[in-house]
Amino acid sequence: PLNCSGHQEPSCSHCVGQRGKITDMSVLQEISSNVRNIKQMEYFVLFRRTNQIKEELRQGVRKSYREVIDVSWGDPHRAGVKPLSFVRQVLAACLYPQLMDGDKLMVDVKQRAQRLLETCAGGSVGSYSDTAGIPQIIQSVSEYILRRDGGVPCHPENIYITPGSQWALTVTNILKVLVNSEASPRTGVLIPVPCHSTTIVSLTALGAVAVPYYLSEERGWALEVEMLQQALDSAKGVCNPVALYIINPGNPIMFKAGNRRSFFFYEFVSYKRALAEIGAPLSDTVELASFHTASKGLMGECGLRAGYVELVNLDPAVMKYIDNLFSNSCPVLGQVALDVMVNPPQPGDPSYPLYLKETQHIRASLAENVRRVEEVINSFPSFSCQSLEGGAFAFPRVFLPPKAIEKAKEAGLQPDTFYCMRLLEEAGLLFSPGTEYGQMEGTYHIRFCIMTPTDTMEEILKRLSTFHKQFMREFA
Amino acid sequence: PLNCSGHQEPSCSHCVGQRGKITDMSVLQEISSNVRNIKQMEYFVLFRRTNQIKEELRQGVRKSYREVIDVSWGDPHRAGVKPLSFVRQVLAACLYPQLMDGDKLMVDVKQRAQRLLETCAGGSVGSYSDTAGIPQIIQSVSEYILRRDGGVPCHPENIYITPGSQWALTVTNILKVLVNSEASPRTGVLIPVPCHSTTIVSLTALGAVAVPYYLSEERGWALEVEMLQQALDSAKGVCNPVALYIINPGNPIMFKAGNRRSFFFYEFVSYKRALAEIGAPLSDTVELASFHTASKGLMGECGLRAGYVELVNLDPAVMKYIDNLFSNSCPVLGQVALDVMVNPPQPGDPSYPLYLKETQHIRASLAENVRRVEEVINSFPSFSCQSLEGGAFAFPRVFLPPKAIEKAKEAGLQPDTFYCMRLLEEAGLLFSPGTEYGQMEGTYHIRFCIMTPTDTMEEILKRLSTFHKQFMREFA
Repeated sequence: PLNCSGHQEPSCSHCVGQRGKITDMSVLQEISSNVRNIKQMEYFVLFRRTNQIKEELRQGVRKSYREVIDVSWGDPHRAGVKPLSFVRQVLAACLYPQLMDGDKLMVDVKQRAQRLLETCAGGSVGSYSDTAGIPQIIQSVSEYILRRDGGVPCHPENIYITPGSQWALTVTNILKVLVNSEASPRTGVLIPVPCHSTTIVSLTALGAVAVPYYLSEERGWALEVEMLQQALDSAKGVCNPVALYIINPGNPIMFKAGNRRSFFFYEFVSYKRALAEIGAPLSDTVELASFHTASKGLMGECGLRAGYVELVNLDPAVMKYIDNLFSNSCPVLGQVALDVMVNPPQPGDPSYPLYLKETQHIRASLAENVRRVEEVINSFPSFSCQSLEGGAFAFPRVFLPPKAIEKAKEAGLQPDTFYCMRLLEEAGLLFSPGTEYGQMEGTYHIRFCIMTPTDTMEEILKRLSTFHKQFMREFA
Repeated sequence: PLNCSGHQEPSCSHCVGQRGKITDMSVLQEISSNVRNIKQMEYFVLFRRTNQIKEELRQGVRKSYREVIDVSWGDPHRAGVKPLSFVRQVLAACLYPQLMDGDKLMVDVKQRAQRLLETCAGGSVGSYSDTAGIPQIIQSVSEYILRRDGGVPCHPENIYITPGSQWALTVTNILKVLVNSEASPRTGVLIPVPCHSTTIVSLTALGAVAVPYYLSEERGWALEVEMLQQALDSAKGVCNPVALYIINPGNPIMFKAGNRRSFFFYEFVSYKRALAEIGAPLSDTVELASFHTASKGLMGECGLRAGYVELVNLDPAVMKYIDNLFSNSCPVLGQVALDVMVNPPQPGDPSYPLYLKETQHIRASLAENVRRVEEVINSFPSFSCQSLEGGAFAFPRVFLPPKAIEKAKEAGLQPDTFYCMRLLEEAGLLFSPGTEYGQMEGTYHIRFCIMTPTDTMEEILKRLSTFHKQFMREFA
């Protein structure tokens, strides 16, 4: 029509149906709302400013720090942790088998690389693998789970090698099977608080309702049955909770309420073993999806994009559909790394001494970081840090003065985002605000990765202490 | 209710809403129909039998061949083609930088690895990269495209590094923006025939209509304007064609019909350059998405899962949404390989002589394979093979005798699947039937990868010739 100037309104008959990108408005709007959710995340404000500051530093702008330390990711190598030599040697030997001719590599590195190359089509990590992953590597994973769980059976056909345990590609696939976007009442999934906000975005995008249950900060972020019960009560009349999502390394827990008996676990400790120990009928009926990845733990190989999911007690009919959801997307080198993750060097192997030294160093650094973080943070009355028993992050509570909270409001930021922004600006430290993860109303937190070299952590704590004193003085 | 025995019918009030997997029936049914489409593909019958035969051979069952040669994939390394040393050396050096200390690696390998490691967070390929890919590698890709297209501008912000150019992860993302599943009439996408059937499955799953246009076999599978016009005519009253999907290395072609001006290209030759040469207004308005991958071409690194897409003339509003679709999923080592792909060793570089020798060897092998395939296949009156000018596959027509067609019907198979099944059983060769890709009614084809070492191709042609003679005698 005459009054259309390409304004791309879905209601305009000229625009609708004429061009792919216009006819697609409904899809775009759906995506749009996700993007909005994500872009509104407070973290992105910080992330953008970090890039600006880095550019300013490159251009020679003077600041009290020479580089930004980014500990907002669970990304150990980014923070300066060194990769494990055995992992990298096996990967390098698989990529460039000529390396095995010399005497630079230990015999167990060569044997492992040789064995893994034999599992690759054409003997090359450059060929495609089977849909669920390389069968021999799936076998290795299932034997590892069997050992880990003290003999609880593990069936290779229940294991899928996946590109990491990323929400976008892996957990969402499982949720697709679980969530019926058309259901009434809607499907509910119990999620912990704190928990990354992408979890809520993903659930909402699938048409589910996120039902938060609060972890107990005073008890070191433990999972408490009463909190689960409160969450279930809050869901009444709103949605039908069918799954429980667990991400913290707390104690295993099961629950059964009415006819609900489908649960869903994200594990660091073995919920599968705990389930088996409960015995029938629960051990044969509770459905469990447990994820693991080469990105976390001692390896920290985030860039390889490799993980696996084990599915327990799923209906065979559902398994058939899942077959189709996971298609052939884990890079072969990532699969090689998984094989090493589940079969590290053993005492007596030529690579064992170095492997032991490196892993002990990572463990000792982490223990030292834990000790120092608790010591330094808890030396401030305006900070409170629970003892760090597992996981890669500290999540201390910060008691912000009313004047700071007021100032944050003026800036249009959540109080803890305001704190993190000033921390970034003045101390060159990128932390995440608790707002990103959910927290009890009126409480504020900051979150940072503690898997760093010890000298990096000292530098972080020094900058944090200096900044925090100034900040508290300013807003006293 | 009393009469429910866990039958999982969506209509049963006992089942509905009780368990995640039941409430989810609508999603499962949708997935189910995709699975059915895929599982019904004739190729899967062959694939399953291949695995059985391999197992039989392992168990010592006697056959006229000692191993199955699988040339049904476009997977050069699987077929025995050797990886390029420079690619593998750079990757190995990035993974295990200690390799750079010795004198085993050329100085340009070390320099490249050093430069690439500097682009990785924390100097490790084990850390996460930015969402669209590592900025410096995106820059390399954009400079490569600029050179390739003789100076046609290429903007880094239009490039996304992706996990291969796989349908599942990459092309589908672009189609999501293009296809409105609610549109009436439905969105149409013109696709070539032959073309892999997953293309149709993906389009159908997104709610689009696949509008086939036939390539001209007599003219060496060329794209002809009349065929496109026929396809457009066939779409009238059925759907609204908004995009053209091109996968063969034919001549660039544009069309504009009525208000339609959104097209979509898959390129091996530069459609972007052709578009620029046409000039305004088309060159500024036709939207183009062009894909490339490390899986194809001289590298053949399928297992690394790396590719890129360049988006041209897309609406800035749409680009914002696309930002969110591609998230952080190309493995860092795959990105490293892309950098080498777009910047191979140049004359004068220490690695150039070996690189030249290896790539010349691959090219010469391919040329020899092309010559021999045409020679051998066309020596049979019951075969007809178009001259192979590009691409990694031969797609000869086979004139099957009526008795063979009848026998295939009895076996419940398409005639060319029947031929391929016998070829597998008797000669240990895994080819794909033309049925998988679409073909003119009453014609039959077989498809196999020609990117193999020359001795492998000789073995393939020997087995094929012997089998074909017997087969034609049997059904004469």
